[in-house]
Amino acid sequence: MGSTFGQLFQISTWGESHGGGVGVVVDGCPPLLPLTEADIQVDLDRRRPGQSEITTPRNEEDKAEILSGTFEGLTLGSPIAILVRNKDHRPEAYSEMSEKFRPSHADYTYQAKYGIRNWQGGGRSSARETIGRVAAAAIAKKVISAHFAPDLEILPFVESIGSIRANVDHATLTREMIESNIVRTGDPDSIEPMIDLIKQVRGEGNSIGGVVGCVIRNVPVGLGMPVFDRLEADLAKAMLSLPATKGFEVGSGFSGTAMTGREHNDAFRMQDGRVRTTSNRSGGVQGGISNGEDIVFRVAFKPTATIMTAQDTVSTDYGDTELKGRGRHDACVLPRAVPMVEAMAALVLVDHMLRQRALRGTHEGDKRR
Amino acid sequence: MGSTFGQLFQISTWGESHGGGVGVVVDGCPPLLPLTEADIQVDLDRRRPGQSEITTPRNEEDKAEILSGTFEGLTLGSPIAILVRNKDHRPEAYSEMSEKFRPSHADYTYQAKYGIRNWQGGGRSSARETIGRVAAAAIAKKVISAHFAPDLEILPFVESIGSIRANVDHATLTREMIESNIVRTGDPDSIEPMIDLIKQVRGEGNSIGGVVGCVIRNVPVGLGMPVFDRLEADLAKAMLSLPATKGFEVGSGFSGTAMTGREHNDAFRMQDGRVRTTSNRSGGVQGGISNGEDIVFRVAFKPTATIMTAQDTVSTDYGDTELKGRGRHDACVLPRAVPMVEAMAALVLVDHMLRQRALRGTHEGDKRR
Amino acid sequence: MGSTFGQLFQISTWGESHGGGVGVVVDGCPPLLPLTEADIQVDLDRRRPGQSEITTPRNEEDKAEILSGTFEGLTLGSPIAILVRNKDHRPEAYSEMSEKFRPSHADYTYQAKYGIRNWQGGGRSSARETIGRVAAAAIAKKVISAHFAPDLEILPFVESIGSIRANVDHATLTREMIESNIVRTGDPDSIEPMIDLIKQVRGEGNSIGGVVGCVIRNVPVGLGMPVFDRLEADLAKAMLSLPATKGFEVGSGFSGTAMTGREHNDAFRMQDGRVRTTSNRSGGVQGGISNGEDIVFRVAFKPTATIMTAQDTVSTDYGDTELKGRGRHDACVLPRAVPMVEAMAALVLVDHMLRQRALRGTHEGDKRR
Amino acid sequence: MGSTFGQLFQISTWGESHGGGVGVVVDGCPPLLPLTEADIQVDLDRRRPGQSEITTPRNEEDKAEILSGTFEGLTLGSPIAILVRNKDHRPEAYSEMSEKFRPSHADYTYQAKYGIRNWQGGGRSSARETIGRVAAAAIAKKVISAHFAPDLEILPFVESIGSIRANVDHATLTREMIESNIVRTGDPDSIEPMIDLIKQVRGEGNSIGGVVGCVIRNVPVGLGMPVFDRLEADLAKAMLSLPATKGFEVGSGFSGTAMTGREHNDAFRMQDGRVRTTSNRSGGVQGGISNGEDIVFRVAFKPTATIMTAQDTVSTDYGDTELKGRGRHDACVLPRAVPMVEAMAALVLVDHMLRQRALRGTHEGDKRR
Repeated sequence: MGSTFGQLFQISTWGESHGGGVGVVVDGCPPLLPLTEADIQVDLDRRRPGQSEITTPRNEEDKAEILSGTFEGLTLGSPIAILVRNKDHRPEAYSEMSEKFRPSHADYTYQAKYGIRNWQGGGRSSARETIGRVAAAAIAKKVISAHFAPDLEILPFVESIGSIRANVDHATLTREMIESNIVRTGDPDSIEPMIDLIKQVRGEGNSIGGVVGCVIRNVPVGLGMPVFDRLEADLAKAMLSLPATKGFEVGSGFSGTAMTGREHNDAFRMQDGRVRTTSNRSGGVQGGISNGEDIVFRVAFKPTATIMTAQDTVSTDYGDTELKGRGRHDACVLPRAVPMVEAMAALVLVDHMLRQRALRGTHEGDKRR
Repeated sequence: MGSTFGQLFQISTWGESHGGGVGVVVDGCPPLLPLTEADIQVDLDRRRPGQSEITTPRNEEDKAEILSGTFEGLTLGSPIAILVRNKDHRPEAYSEMSEKFRPSHADYTYQAKYGIRNWQGGGRSSARETIGRVAAAAIAKKVISAHFAPDLEILPFVESIGSIRANVDHATLTREMIESNIVRTGDPDSIEPMIDLIKQVRGEGNSIGGVVGCVIRNVPVGLGMPVFDRLEADLAKAMLSLPATKGFEVGSGFSGTAMTGREHNDAFRMQDGRVRTTSNRSGGVQGGISNGEDIVFRVAFKPTATIMTAQDTVSTDYGDTELKGRGRHDACVLPRAVPMVEAMAALVLVDHMLRQRALRGTHEGDKRR
Repeated sequence: MGSTFGQLFQISTWGESHGGGVGVVVDGCPPLLPLTEADIQVDLDRRRPGQSEITTPRNEEDKAEILSGTFEGLTLGSPIAILVRNKDHRPEAYSEMSEKFRPSHADYTYQAKYGIRNWQGGGRSSARETIGRVAAAAIAKKVISAHFAPDLEILPFVESIGSIRANVDHATLTREMIESNIVRTGDPDSIEPMIDLIKQVRGEGNSIGGVVGCVIRNVPVGLGMPVFDRLEADLAKAMLSLPATKGFEVGSGFSGTAMTGREHNDAFRMQDGRVRTTSNRSGGVQGGISNGEDIVFRVAFKPTATIMTAQDTVSTDYGDTELKGRGRHDACVLPRAVPMVEAMAALVLVDHMLRQRALRGTHEGDKRR
Repeated sequence: MGSTFGQLFQISTWGESHGGGVGVVVDGCPPLLPLTEADIQVDLDRRRPGQSEITTPRNEEDKAEILSGTFEGLTLGSPIAILVRNKDHRPEAYSEMSEKFRPSHADYTYQAKYGIRNWQGGGRSSARETIGRVAAAAIAKKVISAHFAPDLEILPFVESIGSIRANVDHATLTREMIESNIVRTGDPDSIEPMIDLIKQVRGEGNSIGGVVGCVIRNVPVGLGMPVFDRLEADLAKAMLSLPATKGFEVGSGFSGTAMTGREHNDAFRMQDGRVRTTSNRSGGVQGGISNGEDIVFRVAFKPTATIMTAQDTVSTDYGDTELKGRGRHDACVLPRAVPMVEAMAALVLVDHMLRQRALRGTHEGDKRR
């Protein structure tokens, strides 16, 4: 329970950071979609450790194997199982963790919940679990493109690291711009300061948090369900299910709470025969349903919990003690969080597209053109 | 699809603001729980319009009828159906809405999604839908108290209205303090300024947003599931499913993103034979699972979309036009949002308690005392 | 838990035989479908007690009220809540049941499971619960007709009562033939013997079982999912969820187990440009998926448990005692079971049509014509 | 969609008969349960081809690898992924199947539903898929034993093959008796005739069907939910989801339909301080809920569709043609169906035990002892 996401495009991830491997089963993918391991590897490579000088030096190849669900290069409509073996085991790096709970990690809560935990790394709470999500989302994006919205673009980017806030123009942002730099920010002027900050905190054995912003363009009108499965509610859950997240806001978000309705409301105007809004404080979602404007949201990531200085903690036999981080960790998860945010957004969107198609025969709302 | 919430304590709400009524079916409530309509009415009265001089003057009695699931004052274990009839119909107040989409409402997106909408009020997008949630949560709170955590307290409060931010001490906050004032803030000094601000924007035919903070005390350790059904992910979805919400943050939230790990981490210490943290930037949740500290989160509410001045909009035959709000509306939803936030928090908690009891025979984690 | 059926056309029934009423919430119905209470009442009248001289003389009007989900005679796409008030209360008829468990009823198991039961009638186990299913299925049939398969016919009929077995020709069977007689059999020669048998056992204070057969014509190819949600698996669950059912078989069923493959296999032949089978031992389903031939299945109903002679039983304080049935009951449920079987079949079919449309954009398999 | 089973003990199977392998993810298994691959292999060996002279000579080792969810020999509470590689590929044996639909197989319906199929064997419709179920159920049985009902015994056996019906005494039946013979019947006198019949039809290039009976002993009172998730409804679905099944009956089943209530009802009597029934036509389930008596049901299996003589069929370019079975197949699936029936029964039971524990804190009904 708790490892499955989606109603119609349903993914079930499994695996601990240490053990046989990690993976995912994707159930509900339409048939006849071209799919090979290379399609998946692209995104896994954007997620993997060791990809740049500012991510953890752990070198995990994260090679995906498709075990089922395809035939002669096409999806069959049956469950697609994907396996990535664990490789870079160094259990000795974790021996102290068998006896002490790492502060602000899941060690203590897992132990309390289950009476047991895999103390060799984060186990199930490791960001390594997101491999399954990213792999599944690579397929989801192909479904979106082939069945629903070929022009749809999901563009997450690093909006801030620590106090450095990128100045990103949503209108001109491109995937190329984001992927051209190892921080994955959308503001050329912020690249170097962000890299420097990450290197600095890492040098201090410290870590730093940040915000991932996301713009989704060319979204069909009518996605999302009233009440509990509002599009922003499902996005919020999706994002808060990622490791290290502490907040989510859509459109005007928390800053909109200080505004009056007169300032905040998005006026409607006809434009090119289509209903548009003249501003986008709604963030592309009204009443839980996409209105065709850009979906805009932000996700808060806390600083990595593993730091290289001694911290107060308690031992597994419940006495006060100290623990100092060891091993190779990201001092800042933001650059690698970008493909994770993208993955979760794609999974939410494809599911709502399939749901809308079930309901009305097409995912397209009655958009006036 | 989309009107059901919860895995084991499962609620299905139904109803439009105008029509036969609104209600809820609660499936999964344990048997033998004392339950009468009075238990539910208490919370419905905290939610209902017309309860004070700063809420909408619409006078809706919102009288709950339990149609099933109880016998001689006790729950049977079968679905509990609750019905609240709609009363205060004034369709004439809505006639203009049949021809124009209200800005920043769900009118246009519902029309696009479904090809039809109930234009007499908000229909399914109306806050009136939350009656079912609040009624269901009144039962959820009884289950929590009787089966799991008698001392658990869910304390939401108005933290800000517009730019006025209450100064609330989480440690000393009480339900009495919150309910003693019509704004439902936890800071005596903010009551009057907040009331004045609401009256002022209402006088101007305008509206204003704000933030609801929430502290949950005496939470059992071990609630929440790894990966997708993390406790904060389910809370985020629950809160973002409420009308007018734009953001959610837990613990340090967005402000934590500017911190370093050294500043942010919550050290563990033994205290009274129990594992405690010396700070609570985690907000009571680590790795998606409650750690026994207070759960602390905040929810952003935008200003009410209905304002009494003319706004640009488009008509249902897709031409540019103007619309001026009419009828009786809340200028600020925050005071009435407090019981809604409480309801959704209770629904998330009871569900995870039942899930944990299924898994381990008891909801209690292996908390060291 | 347990009162919800369907993945996409999802129904949640609620209510006990005695109490405020019974009903259903239908979530997932497409919008823009004409729907009034009269559409539902037709099927409720086929289900209701007191409809003929061979059903229970309890006179329950079972008047349906649509509480939500429609507007100006059309469905909105939002949950459709339907309420039928309980009327014919005679609690005194049940007083003995408060102290004794009726044999082969759910009294003892409900008491054991929940520690409580509504002893005024069958409570949740009453066939009265099926009102919600029949009402929901009236809508499902409209969806099937409007969105998917206008020619599809679901034709359940009484195939046997006790040892009297009707000789029904599937090819010429019509709904008119079935509904023309109060037994709802499809064989004119069996009508009188069946009526006589029911009257005879009733006269003896006894009861009798039987079999409902069902033929579904003009079924689209491609409905059903491999593995767990095979069409026949979902039909089996649907049928066995009806009160008093003891068995289900599809196509050749149990009699097919004595055959060899050479006798049993359905040969394929092209006919009118379509793939057809020259026999139909598969019962219209192969590998869990409809093949376009008639779906044929049979459902076993046990004799009504309430009989008017003294039977051994135990009391609620766990001593041996006797109980003699009282009140007004069907001596044979078969005639009223026909619309229930039809309802469950419709609910299974509409759900799989919606699922197939989600997957491929149309519910139609790639049938060669 | 369609490859997941269970609410709380949730399994997702994946894999085609030809391709990377088959497997399962088990989500919801309680932690701290001893589990190694050997625990799973025992049941896989009872299911595997080539196990005796009357099963297919295909020699598939079916070696299970646990990829996740355990640590130091104990379950972690996280998803348990199990992989069995495909080995015995002989694609050339299937080349004709690429061009012709095998009669009474899933070839045509899969093609129609998905527009594609893996024609190298049965693909997803292959009985090889049940490896995942049997592996998952090996874990389920350990959960039942450790958490709930250590004395519970699931005893499926071959009740008939063709017209040979075993004379099995439910009261004295043991697992040893069933597993002592390669047919897996519970009647020593039927063993040889059954073996002879299977060999005879195989010698003729033909196949034969049969019935698996099942007795479940020492079942806790109170399992199963009213209405849709009745225990027998879930068992019916579980059994009809197995390949080649055509029918399910519980207790008196179809034969009970010819009885009167007086003959059919199970009288209650106190015995050893417990509520018992003096007969068991209910089959251990009343009102959808277990009453503590033996659960008794029967499952119909059709003759294997693959036979070695020419049959009429159509080609994939939709012309009439002939096809003669090739390759190595079971002439009778019954002996290997026994562990599959056992697996599905265990999965249904463990799920309802967990659900009952969630509801009431213990799976035990208020059984009077």
